[in-house]
Amino acid sequence: MPGNRAGFELNARLQADSEHVMWLGLCELRLMNDSRWLWLMLIPRRPDIEEVHELTPLDQAMLTFETNLVAQELKAFTRCTKINIGALGNIVRQLHVHVIARNEGDAAWPGPVWGHGQRTPYQGGERDRLVASIRSLF
Amino acid sequence: MPGNRAGFELNARLQADSEHVMWLGLCELRLMNDSRWLWLMLIPRRPDIEEVHELTPLDQAMLTFETNLVAQELKAFTRCTKINIGALGNIVRQLHVHVIARNEGDAAWPGPVWGHGQRTPYQGGERDRLVASIRSLF
Repeated sequence: MPGNRAGFELNARLQADSEHVMWLGLCELRLMNDSRWLWLMLIPRRPDIEEVHELTPLDQAMLTFETNLVAQELKAFTRCTKINIGALGNIVRQLHVHVIARNEGDAAWPGPVWGHGQRTPYQGGERDRLVASIRSLF
Repeated sequence: MPGNRAGFELNARLQADSEHVMWLGLCELRLMNDSRWLWLMLIPRRPDIEEVHELTPLDQAMLTFETNLVAQELKAFTRCTKINIGALGNIVRQLHVHVIARNEGDAAWPGPVWGHGQRTPYQGGERDRLVASIRSLF
């Protein structure tokens, strides 16, 4: 399975909160199950990494390339006002990078999305349709 | 002046909220004037850029290198629990990348720092001493 690179296992909370979209070269791309924002997440498939600077220089370059590719496609797809990129990890330590489409007047605008209010899961087949649309961008 | 690369001008709000530390290859490194967290900011000296993916591929690689170098040194210097990295830009659109030292129990822990409560400026010579300490790391 592409996800099981030597010793790598996706954190249980990240798995529960989001849906698999696809495998990129280094990262797994996932969609957060929160319909308030179109919110993607990249998780480098490397074990025991908490900070970006702990990755090898090559992996750092790969992560940058994949993050910026995702950001560019997400902005074109949503025509959003601003992309927000963040690597926080205060709650879940496994390295993960958020890429979020933000719009003036959205649920947390102009503040950050992390920790804001209650998650609003997608309804019906909306999430699956969105996953298919995002997959088709790459 | 190193800051005046063809057409580049630092946004007035970023300038007012932070203090110059030093020039890196691509970015200006600044210290946010908020003593609640040790909070650094990198501003790529390129005009009219709002998103990381709008930079050239070489500038994207440079920004990654400089961001991760700053993150690594900030973590070693502070021995903090977690580094937070973010490029939001919902309020100030000029591209700027935050690198923040976070600790369990700090003013916003485990939430994000952006938009949290009231800024607490450094007192007396504390800010200047800190700027000198940070400069000596690079």
